[in-house]
Amino acid sequence: MGLTKSIDINCDMGESYGNYHIGNDTALMPYINSANIACGMHGGDPVHIERTICLALEHNVRIGAHPGYPDLQGFGRRVIAMKPEELASFIKYQVAALKGLVEANGGKLAYVKPHGALYNHIAQNKADAQVVIQAIRSIDSSLSIMGLAGSHMKTLVEEAGSTFIAEAFADRRYEIDGKLRSRSLPEALITNPKDACEQVLSIANALFTQTLAGDKVSLVADSFCIHGDNPAALAIAKSLKEQIKDNS
Amino acid sequence: MGLTKSIDINCDMGESYGNYHIGNDTALMPYINSANIACGMHGGDPVHIERTICLALEHNVRIGAHPGYPDLQGFGRRVIAMKPEELASFIKYQVAALKGLVEANGGKLAYVKPHGALYNHIAQNKADAQVVIQAIRSIDSSLSIMGLAGSHMKTLVEEAGSTFIAEAFADRRYEIDGKLRSRSLPEALITNPKDACEQVLSIANALFTQTLAGDKVSLVADSFCIHGDNPAALAIAKSLKEQIKDNS
Amino acid sequence: MGLTKSIDINCDMGESYGNYHIGNDTALMPYINSANIACGMHGGDPVHIERTICLALEHNVRIGAHPGYPDLQGFGRRVIAMKPEELASFIKYQVAALKGLVEANGGKLAYVKPHGALYNHIAQNKADAQVVIQAIRSIDSSLSIMGLAGSHMKTLVEEAGSTFIAEAFADRRYEIDGKLRSRSLPEALITNPKDACEQVLSIANALFTQTLAGDKVSLVADSFCIHGDNPAALAIAKSLKEQIKDNS
Amino acid sequence: MGLTKSIDINCDMGESYGNYHIGNDTALMPYINSANIACGMHGGDPVHIERTICLALEHNVRIGAHPGYPDLQGFGRRVIAMKPEELASFIKYQVAALKGLVEANGGKLAYVKPHGALYNHIAQNKADAQVVIQAIRSIDSSLSIMGLAGSHMKTLVEEAGSTFIAEAFADRRYEIDGKLRSRSLPEALITNPKDACEQVLSIANALFTQTLAGDKVSLVADSFCIHGDNPAALAIAKSLKEQIKDNS
Repeated sequence: MGLTKSIDINCDMGESYGNYHIGNDTALMPYINSANIACGMHGGDPVHIERTICLALEHNVRIGAHPGYPDLQGFGRRVIAMKPEELASFIKYQVAALKGLVEANGGKLAYVKPHGALYNHIAQNKADAQVVIQAIRSIDSSLSIMGLAGSHMKTLVEEAGSTFIAEAFADRRYEIDGKLRSRSLPEALITNPKDACEQVLSIANALFTQTLAGDKVSLVADSFCIHGDNPAALAIAKSLKEQIKDNS
Repeated sequence: MGLTKSIDINCDMGESYGNYHIGNDTALMPYINSANIACGMHGGDPVHIERTICLALEHNVRIGAHPGYPDLQGFGRRVIAMKPEELASFIKYQVAALKGLVEANGGKLAYVKPHGALYNHIAQNKADAQVVIQAIRSIDSSLSIMGLAGSHMKTLVEEAGSTFIAEAFADRRYEIDGKLRSRSLPEALITNPKDACEQVLSIANALFTQTLAGDKVSLVADSFCIHGDNPAALAIAKSLKEQIKDNS
Repeated sequence: MGLTKSIDINCDMGESYGNYHIGNDTALMPYINSANIACGMHGGDPVHIERTICLALEHNVRIGAHPGYPDLQGFGRRVIAMKPEELASFIKYQVAALKGLVEANGGKLAYVKPHGALYNHIAQNKADAQVVIQAIRSIDSSLSIMGLAGSHMKTLVEEAGSTFIAEAFADRRYEIDGKLRSRSLPEALITNPKDACEQVLSIANALFTQTLAGDKVSLVADSFCIHGDNPAALAIAKSLKEQIKDNS
Repeated sequence: MGLTKSIDINCDMGESYGNYHIGNDTALMPYINSANIACGMHGGDPVHIERTICLALEHNVRIGAHPGYPDLQGFGRRVIAMKPEELASFIKYQVAALKGLVEANGGKLAYVKPHGALYNHIAQNKADAQVVIQAIRSIDSSLSIMGLAGSHMKTLVEEAGSTFIAEAFADRRYEIDGKLRSRSLPEALITNPKDACEQVLSIANALFTQTLAGDKVSLVADSFCIHGDNPAALAIAKSLKEQIKDNS
């Protein structure tokens, strides 16, 4: 399938911490459009965060803040029960830190994508979603907010007056209800670059993809995520970049 | 002794962390002029930081960022050896987080005062002082920088193009060379409010104070620090406020 | 009411961290029988842990390990979702550290009392309770295990072959179903030493206490907790000690 | 050169943390004799620590505790200024945790090797070396202590009544004074397995090695370290194992 419109590829980055390296930021940066950069709570430290910002700026990659729960040991993948005002302060702190570091390096923060357990939690919990959205807006009301395509996030973000970026996944299988196939099931992750490309192009052009069983799932997405820790991430990114070039 | 000009009293605040409370922010805030608010590395978490910002704004207290070494267990009182680019990123991150949180609450960040071991380290190490100054300026070149009165900080800050706030201590004894009497020696801390007031007024009016032995020490200061963990902090703050009111 | 048998008073201790002090360990230690000492994950650092061990040994107070979820910012009061093998490793690590530190100071670790959200979680979740019990036993099968009186913990601990210490609370109100009155409701905390003593003596002698409405709640308890952060903790502890002395 | 006596190869392991993986423990374990396992302060968490212990036990590898400064962000490679009693408590805590976890899995902790900045600091600072040695002995006086060959550690450990394990490095160049060539200089790291083997065999058999300039350096060593983060670590380990097999 060819590509009938431009597509946006995003990747979580800047999550290394001290001597601990994670992801493949340097290799992937040339092939993506948007970098979701960790903010120091679920991963990332100021040194790696600033290096990743500089790398994104070199490659003219759009920069998003990627705030998460304060849980380095759990990498932000466990829900941390927080009161609304606590959650708000933690989001504001992280987004403000990222925004300041980006601007100190001559760039502009474009959007915010919550991370991991927080991303999933607010895709299902309306009250906390609104807390996060308002916290982001209080730091900079011009920031776009990226969230799960097909969830209530679109309505909530737009009602608050911000631009929503609907995110689909290049390298994860979908179920018939539009949810992501659980990582605890086989074939949840797409590791074949050809299949990942097909899923992206199908959603981008025709607004649907297919489940493993072959059922159609309708999906409207503005940006496609590749997971940096997918062993096929670089191959998928290169392959998608090639498609975009061929078709744009 | 009366007061012949207005004086500025500052205090370290917002250093509580989770369930751990430190200092006496609520009681002290009405009596001070400038609040140095922790940034989450040596102390403080986003919740307590934002609460302290709101408290300062209620009392029309000038807000400063109080960044420190990333060492919660050591409360920022141990030098952490960092490369210049590491130190710079850690400073930018903390100042940016504070600035964003202050602005999200309708205020304006006025200055930066490095904390603890970092404060003392850069008062003696020119290269790292310049790293810190440039990091602060990269986040906001209009920020003033508070540092040790009588140190090279004044020259370095002003050469960089920023405003320097020379800080003396209301509740610490000075030695004849202008250095603070070491906390490991007796009577290093002034706990008698009357003595603290006398030291402040003497420096403010006559540009000197006295050592324990009675020797004169010349000191020019723009702001006077009260340590929140000094048991006499509140009494000293009230007493100074009274003096200022009587004389202004 | 007098006392017809000896009672055991326990208190959470050693939870200070670096420059952050919490609780009133030094003042309370002379008045308690058992010290639940933090293990460094929800609170406590090796320095404060070892000091508290030494303090307990001086006062011939029985020592328990008080392991919690790895969440210093949340003080172990938030459930952290962990896989069984993760939970097991975290418990073993903490109990082992405490046991070694106690023995290095010439004492003997007597029991383990899980902390905060973990305590409540395993009082309701059988599978995770068994994980925790087995983890404790793998470090030292002679350790007793303290848990919520009236919960499934008694059965689970005894089935595993360990001694159970049923814990009731001196300073918390009970509901008619035997659960603790939620801290979000008024009068959940008992701050009047006389009332706390009455609750302890009633449970110790007559195996029941009363709800706020005056209903009887049956309770069999081996040890009574006073919360170190209850402002009345010291008064309650002294009052109970007095009762014990008068009646033993 | 052949091998005239058996040699001991050690490697730092168990330093992964949460989602952050470091080293190549699974691949290296079959080729080493002694595993220095992180204790959770400079690296390692209870989950990875226990997994590494199990892996070592499977391969009949001798287990050592590898305590470090409490500085995850700095990976224990920065000196943290601690008072003697603070340092002692931190060492006891870490060694006790490791010992308990090893014994819970049916093994026996054999020795302790301090990590990183702590290793180098105590090789030069006699007072702190004695603090560390006594802290280790207070947990288990039968533990051997591994330290820098040619340093004062041998004397200090033996005077305290413990067995010293003198450590040389398979993959680091030595200078003529017996110190390690600084990592800031070229060719400090040996990445050619043949050269690493030659250095090990020369020290093991003939009690010397050569500097880059060809000068002889006398060295008596009981164990040889391979750095897990050396890209050639596995090749060096396999090559040494092969030599030992051929010659024993």
